Amino acid sequence: MFESAELGHKIDKATYDTEVPKLREDLINAQFNLAKKAKFPVIILVGGLDGAGRGETVNLLNEWMDARFIQTHGMGEPSDEEMERPMMWRFWRALPPKGRIGVFLGSWYTWPIMNHLQGHTKNAALIRSLERARRMERMLTDEGALIIKFWLHLSREQQKARLKMLEADPKTRWRVTDRDWEHYKMYKKLRNIHETVIRHTSTAEAPWLIVEGADPRYRSLTVGKIVLEAIRKRLKQENIKTSKVLAPPLLTSIDNLHILKSLDLSQQIEKNKFSVELEKCQGKLALLTRDPRFSNITVIAVFEGNDAAGKGGAIRRVTGALDARYYNTIPIAAPTEEERAQPYLWRFWRHIPRRGRFTIFDRSWYGRVLVERIEKICSESDWMRAYSEINDFEAQLVRHNIVVIKFWLSISKDEQLHRFKEREKISFKRFKITEEDWRNRKKWNEYETAVCDMVDRTSTKIAPWTLVEANDKDFARIKILKTLCRQIEAAMKKN
Amino acid sequence: MFESAELGHKIDKATYDTEVPKLREDLINAQFNLAKKAKFPVIILVGGLDGAGRGETVNLLNEWMDARFIQTHGMGEPSDEEMERPMMWRFWRALPPKGRIGVFLGSWYTWPIMNHLQGHTKNAALIRSLERARRMERMLTDEGALIIKFWLHLSREQQKARLKMLEADPKTRWRVTDRDWEHYKMYKKLRNIHETVIRHTSTAEAPWLIVEGADPRYRSLTVGKIVLEAIRKRLKQENIKTSKVLAPPLLTSIDNLHILKSLDLSQQIEKNKFSVELEKCQGKLALLTRDPRFSNITVIAVFEGNDAAGKGGAIRRVTGALDARYYNTIPIAAPTEEERAQPYLWRFWRHIPRRGRFTIFDRSWYGRVLVERIEKICSESDWMRAYSEINDFEAQLVRHNIVVIKFWLSISKDEQLHRFKEREKISFKRFKITEEDWRNRKKWNEYETAVCDMVDRTSTKIAPWTLVEANDKDFARIKILKTLCRQIEAAMKKN
Repeated sequence: MFESAELGHKIDKATYDTEVPKLREDLINAQFNLAKKAKFPVIILVGGLDGAGRGETVNLLNEWMDARFIQTHGMGEPSDEEMERPMMWRFWRALPPKGRIGVFLGSWYTWPIMNHLQGHTKNAALIRSLERARRMERMLTDEGALIIKFWLHLSREQQKARLKMLEADPKTRWRVTDRDWEHYKMYKKLRNIHETVIRHTSTAEAPWLIVEGADPRYRSLTVGKIVLEAIRKRLKQENIKTSKVLAPPLLTSIDNLHILKSLDLSQQIEKNKFSVELEKCQGKLALLTRDPRFSNITVIAVFEGNDAAGKGGAIRRVTGALDARYYNTIPIAAPTEEERAQPYLWRFWRHIPRRGRFTIFDRSWYGRVLVERIEKICSESDWMRAYSEINDFEAQLVRHNIVVIKFWLSISKDEQLHRFKEREKISFKRFKITEEDWRNRKKWNEYETAVCDMVDRTSTKIAPWTLVEANDKDFARIKILKTLCRQIEAAMKKN
Repeated sequence: MFESAELGHKIDKATYDTEVPKLREDLINAQFNLAKKAKFPVIILVGGLDGAGRGETVNLLNEWMDARFIQTHGMGEPSDEEMERPMMWRFWRALPPKGRIGVFLGSWYTWPIMNHLQGHTKNAALIRSLERARRMERMLTDEGALIIKFWLHLSREQQKARLKMLEADPKTRWRVTDRDWEHYKMYKKLRNIHETVIRHTSTAEAPWLIVEGADPRYRSLTVGKIVLEAIRKRLKQENIKTSKVLAPPLLTSIDNLHILKSLDLSQQIEKNKFSVELEKCQGKLALLTRDPRFSNITVIAVFEGNDAAGKGGAIRRVTGALDARYYNTIPIAAPTEEERAQPYLWRFWRHIPRRGRFTIFDRSWYGRVLVERIEKICSESDWMRAYSEINDFEAQLVRHNIVVIKFWLSISKDEQLHRFKEREKISFKRFKITEEDWRNRKKWNEYETAVCDMVDRTSTKIAPWTLVEANDKDFARIKILKTLCRQIEAAMKKN
């Protein structure tokens, strides 16, 4: 795989000096067109061997291009903030929006490679993390991103020569560290790992481009030209997103029975029993979240449900038991402009809390397979792929000790009508009922189908859905509090 | 994930009897349209729990549909023939051609699940095999296939009841084996494994459809309707293949240096030294392939090269050393009608030999990234994804103890001209030179680029390319024989 990148490619100074001005002009123009049309982001990964010129390449791209539209991320050691969140969080927060270029020096490949090189992980674990990278990139390209992955390579002799050269020059000496020489000693091992990485993650949608790093002029011109060509080629393509759905249709119930119908919505709790239970449950939750062991976990509670099912009231009963410094409620409404310029899951990733925190999502990433599906805000292919993307997302959270607790608050169609009318009568509740609520109500059956598909496809052992019978608000609140306590307790015992 | 499939779905007899005749008629019509248009194959996987009605479902589909256009494969214990080839071989040979339906009772999921249940594999190995299944299915859907994956499920109570019921009836008693009851005892463990399988392999292009298996009428009607809807929906879609290429362009050499130019084509061997060497090398190869350890491996040698580079002559020098009972030469020309109705790699999978065999491919699966790319026989997205599909394919071969040895025979443009003219002069060689050869020659540079991309993207540690300097035919022959001996020796030592 590295054959072509060990040939001793070279560009002479005269050629370089002639070509660069034109290339820079073209790059700036391409960038400008990209920003103007703003239909997709460009993600450039720069990986490779120590001394192969990764840093110089990134600096050069910055120098050549318009700084307003390009941003560089040196992904070195993760910060405290980052360590307390799943590994991918730091990349999500750094993703460029549509129309912009993000350059990553070090990427989601860096730590899997380092961990494996240092013997912390076995081959199987390396390959699993590579598969996760593959899926991440597939999601990004499905969302329209242009991913350009450069791998800067050197032969063993070239690496030695480069490191020596950098050391000899007082201006660059600081760039050669002990770790670089250690890695040089492990050249063969590292090269084998790199080959595994490239073989597993060079896909049709995001292939690795291996560039020989020994000659700076060759390297720079090659990288610059590829970036230019890639942006130009993509700008010519209309309508980047694939809209074809190759899958068979999802199951629909042919006997009129489905999980929501299996709920006994008549369940209630007596008023005075409720006050006792509420105090007990809130007290327990308060204790649990103040337990020292809670600092090792994170809780994310997701609230979804029919309109007027009582999400708000239930959430208030939960937050009533929590310490205001450690919880956060995220109400999810229509995405902002900034959020629309990013892949779908971006606006949820940004709210993923640190350790020891409790975050409540009032509506969530499930919007895509509920309202966005029904109202055709996204295409069929978008919501079809969302199921597995959401499962991947939640698996990342769970792997990072995050307890994901998901509630669907279910009320009957009659109860909803009753509540809508109540709301219209009471002046201080009137703001809670809108034309949209009445419109959604007309699509009751479609929403039911979407909820069943959602539960079937995303209720997993690691992040199960809890269906809450919510015709009686108090019954729902107690069930929610008990579920939270039980799942937090279980998670703390595991740690 | 199994929530909806444990509700006790039921269809009463009257409804069933009313609906089935119409459904059967529709299915037959859909099948007929499928066969007529013949643009894609339908692959139906039927998996699930023992006693959930997998066999009955498959029988029913056969009963309901036109037998000429549907074929069922009960993938039980692999045969000797199958055991001696990579696991996927048996599935490749059973794939339905375009316009036909193939039903698989047991699939590429069966053995990974069984091996894991019985403790032969760890979780990481299970997940790796699931990732391979994911890639296989992605390849199939990229090739246009419609994949419908049914998972027949039962709750623990339902499974017990079903097994007891089947046992009580003398007509069905034989279907309940000790293994079924053993699996029943492991219900919870099995259910967890199944959940892992479904979570990892329910993709946007090939989602699992979980069907409750307890009531035969519900199950049959659901499966029948899904198959019907899926075929109808797909028949409505024009142009199934995605043609968009989201990737950046591949690297092109900007300094006019590439791997083919780095070869020293002037290398030669003297005539009398050649005879001695030839005898020595052929003798060694003869001994190696007759060594008892050879029966544990398989050799696949791939010959690609410029037109007139001397592939035929080189192959004859190799086969001259082999036992005719154990080798096979596969010349690859344009695909037959039967081959065109299958995914691209099908025509190579069919020739994968058993253990202890030596197979020579005179041209190969690399046609897609060479002639098909240059002559635009396939789309850019097809050859772009071919690199990783080929790497996956060869990784499967290597995992099965197959030694994959790949030669590119390289001659200079001048030498080719010389040989073309020679061939035209000599009457018994004239058949070897055609108009097409002259046409290809005009695209010399394009072919060079394609060869470099091919080597860069598919020369891996597990299946490396050997570039052979072939201006001197004898030199090339000796290099090829030596490479074969060295690689076979290394593989036999490893085993």
